[in-house]
Amino acid sequence: LARGGRTQSSLGSGCVRMALQGVCVLSLCVLTAWAAVEGSGLVDAVSERRAEETHRQGSAVAVLFTLLLTTTILTTWLFKHRRCRLLHETGLAMIYGLLVGVVLRFGVHVQPDVIDAPLSCVSNSSPPALLLNISGRLYEYTLRGEVSDTQGQDAPNAEILRKVTFDPEVFFNVLLPPIIFHAGYSLKRRHFFRNLGSILSYAFVGTVISSFVIGVVMYGCVALMSALGHLGGDFFFTDCLFFGAIISATDPVTVLAIFNELRVDVDLYALLFGESALNDAVAIVLSSSIVAYQPVSSSSHSFDGGAMLWSLGVFLGVLSGSFALGTAAGFITALVTKLTRLRDFPLLETSLFFLMSWSTFLFAEACSITGVVAVLFCGITQAHYTHSNLSAESKKRTRELFELLNFLAESFIFSYMGLTLFSFQHHVFNPVFISGAFLAMFLGRAANIYPLSFLLNLGRSNRISSNFQHVMMFAGLRGAMAFALSIRDTSTYARQMMFSTTLLIVFFTVWVFGGGTTPVLSYMNIRYTHIYTITQMHLNLVDEVVSRSYSQDSAWPIRLWYTFDHNYLKPLLTHSGPPLIKTLPACCSPLARCLTSSQDYQVKNTHLYPARRCLVSEILALEL
Amino acid sequence: LARGGRTQSSLGSGCVRMALQGVCVLSLCVLTAWAAVEGSGLVDAVSERRAEETHRQGSAVAVLFTLLLTTTILTTWLFKHRRCRLLHETGLAMIYGLLVGVVLRFGVHVQPDVIDAPLSCVSNSSPPALLLNISGRLYEYTLRGEVSDTQGQDAPNAEILRKVTFDPEVFFNVLLPPIIFHAGYSLKRRHFFRNLGSILSYAFVGTVISSFVIGVVMYGCVALMSALGHLGGDFFFTDCLFFGAIISATDPVTVLAIFNELRVDVDLYALLFGESALNDAVAIVLSSSIVAYQPVSSSSHSFDGGAMLWSLGVFLGVLSGSFALGTAAGFITALVTKLTRLRDFPLLETSLFFLMSWSTFLFAEACSITGVVAVLFCGITQAHYTHSNLSAESKKRTRELFELLNFLAESFIFSYMGLTLFSFQHHVFNPVFISGAFLAMFLGRAANIYPLSFLLNLGRSNRISSNFQHVMMFAGLRGAMAFALSIRDTSTYARQMMFSTTLLIVFFTVWVFGGGTTPVLSYMNIRYTHIYTITQMHLNLVDEVVSRSYSQDSAWPIRLWYTFDHNYLKPLLTHSGPPLIKTLPACCSPLARCLTSSQDYQVKNTHLYPARRCLVSEILALEL
Repeated sequence: LARGGRTQSSLGSGCVRMALQGVCVLSLCVLTAWAAVEGSGLVDAVSERRAEETHRQGSAVAVLFTLLLTTTILTTWLFKHRRCRLLHETGLAMIYGLLVGVVLRFGVHVQPDVIDAPLSCVSNSSPPALLLNISGRLYEYTLRGEVSDTQGQDAPNAEILRKVTFDPEVFFNVLLPPIIFHAGYSLKRRHFFRNLGSILSYAFVGTVISSFVIGVVMYGCVALMSALGHLGGDFFFTDCLFFGAIISATDPVTVLAIFNELRVDVDLYALLFGESALNDAVAIVLSSSIVAYQPVSSSSHSFDGGAMLWSLGVFLGVLSGSFALGTAAGFITALVTKLTRLRDFPLLETSLFFLMSWSTFLFAEACSITGVVAVLFCGITQAHYTHSNLSAESKKRTRELFELLNFLAESFIFSYMGLTLFSFQHHVFNPVFISGAFLAMFLGRAANIYPLSFLLNLGRSNRISSNFQHVMMFAGLRGAMAFALSIRDTSTYARQMMFSTTLLIVFFTVWVFGGGTTPVLSYMNIRYTHIYTITQMHLNLVDEVVSRSYSQDSAWPIRLWYTFDHNYLKPLLTHSGPPLIKTLPACCSPLARCLTSSQDYQVKNTHLYPARRCLVSEILALEL
Repeated sequence: LARGGRTQSSLGSGCVRMALQGVCVLSLCVLTAWAAVEGSGLVDAVSERRAEETHRQGSAVAVLFTLLLTTTILTTWLFKHRRCRLLHETGLAMIYGLLVGVVLRFGVHVQPDVIDAPLSCVSNSSPPALLLNISGRLYEYTLRGEVSDTQGQDAPNAEILRKVTFDPEVFFNVLLPPIIFHAGYSLKRRHFFRNLGSILSYAFVGTVISSFVIGVVMYGCVALMSALGHLGGDFFFTDCLFFGAIISATDPVTVLAIFNELRVDVDLYALLFGESALNDAVAIVLSSSIVAYQPVSSSSHSFDGGAMLWSLGVFLGVLSGSFALGTAAGFITALVTKLTRLRDFPLLETSLFFLMSWSTFLFAEACSITGVVAVLFCGITQAHYTHSNLSAESKKRTRELFELLNFLAESFIFSYMGLTLFSFQHHVFNPVFISGAFLAMFLGRAANIYPLSFLLNLGRSNRISSNFQHVMMFAGLRGAMAFALSIRDTSTYARQMMFSTTLLIVFFTVWVFGGGTTPVLSYMNIRYTHIYTITQMHLNLVDEVVSRSYSQDSAWPIRLWYTFDHNYLKPLLTHSGPPLIKTLPACCSPLARCLTSSQDYQVKNTHLYPARRCLVSEILALEL
């Protein structure tokens, strides 16, 4: 797969810098105007002045984006204030992005600067970094990407549009991690674990089924286009599968917002949210393993067993590697917060929590596995173990911090999406492909939800009703992940068509499905308020509740996991659960004593009541 | 002034990216190894693999930095836990940085990759962006800076050291803004406004005096070095003044930490903290106006009246521009939070607050004035007006958010400082210059504190005692701002010597002065606990307190300002103070009614008691 257009992966880049990304190009155009300037002192002053101009323009673009976000926030408030649920804030952000895109494309007319001929250098490759010998002095340059040589011909305001376009890797390295971490960190709910088996089925098996169905339907569609002569470039089966993978990732954003506000059935909520959080991980790993699928004879795109196995190996390796790394980081943070008295200083505790979670991402990237996926599992582990070790202050702080980061990143991605519809200059809109994609999307989702629900219902004590299934079918919104995966590489014709189509699918699902969820829920009679209050009576029922809530999921791996978690992991990593010295065999008692903090060692050995209270607080923590 | 070494100002860049900054260089070295590779498909794959390798290494370096910060946090906790005040956390961060620097420089030995010859291109200048025509395809490159051509000869591990070195502009665009904003946002204290006149004198007049004194002493020192033949390059009087400006900025960090913990006299605290927050602004603007001083005949560095006036104009223009912009942004945020009911949604409110404060920085940069200074004034305005409009939830959230950002940025800067002592490869340590600098620093600080205190005491009702003066003299720590200003440009011999010397001065002041503050305070008998509790009795004294606390500062401009603030600005921008319809003339009453929110319109017109309670809460807010 030719991926020359993918720019150098520049890890983590801070929001402002993104806006700068396209800006530098402009200054390039004034290059030849200064060609006559000679003498090193003057050259310095000139290049400095130009660098300052670049910086100034970058700041201006960044101001544009912050104003866009500010407007979105104010309108969101207005919508919430007036209790208007027709449009979610992400839908709003997209509309504002669209408006700004239209204005930039058609409203502003900037006279292009003097366009100069590019420098010609003797080199056979495009290195990521470059030393240039300019009049005897060495300057270092870094690669930003390949530039299409139709520059200046396509759009009237190509320069401005390129200025507001930035490196797609920014999404993966800056914007997605907080969103995905937040999703994982919000998963700490009792109902999530009660439905763990079903969630895993939908997220893993379901997403793979969906990708494959979409891939096959799209391959048929592409064959049709090819027969009709509508196809303007190569489109292989791997491309179709890739499209299937990126389109199968449903977005937790709107689910979280709408279902949280409406207080729908908790099981439905857990299923939908759990699935959409975890299938992001599956989609990202699946798409990268499809990219890794390269038949031995690089020219042919026929089926190759070895390459297929290699892809499967990549899929399993990256997924399990990310899982192991994310979980390990969570465990380390839990142990550190448990064994130190860091909780006396919430600022230090929050900083440590933030740094450890972030270094999970970095460490995964340094190990060449997927940071975003590692961060998801890290978030889940942090929520399940570390969270209960934190001081009340830090619990609040960490939640609020990641809530804020998530909100900002999300609003930014969605408004950028709107902007991209007009600022991206290589859109390929093909009616056949688009219709096919919409059809494939529905078929893929249906092939995920209905058969799996049928199979799961065979084993579940509380069945997933057909109403629930219809809502799950309907609530499959596509969002940030689909966008980020599709914009990552737009170098070939196939990828450009995929990107344009994905954009339309995101718009459609967010506006139509997102806006329609409330009426659909009312129509399906699912909307009701479930308020769970802990009263004194609950104290007497606690043990019963705990055992019942986990035995409800009849699958034995889940029960086994719960027992292991409750008897070993929780006592090891947190202050809850039975003391380790009781659960571990006698030979391990020195170790157990060492890992049981004096605090809960005392508590657990002296009274029965605190142990029970501990369980209540655990239940409360899971519930809230 | 030749500033060719100053790299392209890349605005805002995200912490990770910094670590990447030097990394790209490495991949460069493998360039020629691939020179034989031909064919576009293979070139793509190769350059992609190299980009991935760069990304991987960048992540690894970023992991190193997060681990450094994590270790600092854990040790800080240990010190706080054991109540050890010998070393402040910033001092700790520097020590860890030093250790890592030593290990990287002497401990690790990496075989350098194949070093290749740079590409030679036909160009007379070094543009910030570059299009390269490589085998018929266009690639875009951006400038990272000039590279010294002694590469590979100086240090044993030059590659690794360059990997952990990053663009100095990162300090100005990413790390300083949250620190400076936090300083401004923490200034909301009654005692700050009571001492406003004195604080402004120390910060503005004092810093200018100090810069000039240091400049003159250093010029003498340089003349001596020149006579002794110790000078290895040009060192002009403007360089000396520049050094004076960067060394005159005292750091609020340690003052805040130590004095907050010890609860020293509130007036002394206000003087020290206020001065060190505001003199950062003065130092940054002063240094940039000295850089702007360029005599007409660019070869001579003699005195030039026109250039001098130009510098003065730049100084006043940038300072007042930043002040106006920062204040305006604060006013807008205050009005938005006052007039909308955004407070019902703390997440939206906090996001808006964050975005508005950040866009102040960006907007200032886009207008070519200093963002860091604008952010300081924005922080002060936000604290004084917007803060009181926020919901209780958002008040907490914004404080905690900026506290966290400040803590992380600060720890990072200080540990990077330690690292730089070994990783920076162009240190110029000159014993004469260093001794001169230490002497000049003391003289400059003395020339700031003692004469000004004498003059101020003539007008102050509560005089600044000589003990206070000695403490102010002693607590003049140099920190992040001095470092950031000195590392910004290290292209010339003079600048390199300044940078190395500044580093030593920061180390000395943070370790010796920072660690010695507690004993000095005890010795001076200043350490006592001042606990201000609001009781029912205070309700009766409120009006008296308000008027007394402001009339105490006898300077009429301060009194005038207070009246204006209390009668017009506060009622306009917040819900406190007398209603506008009473203070504004009758002709403006429609406007006044429009700007008075219905909420406080009702309250203020019906009862006297709420008005008084309002004042109490105002006092409390100022106090806490």
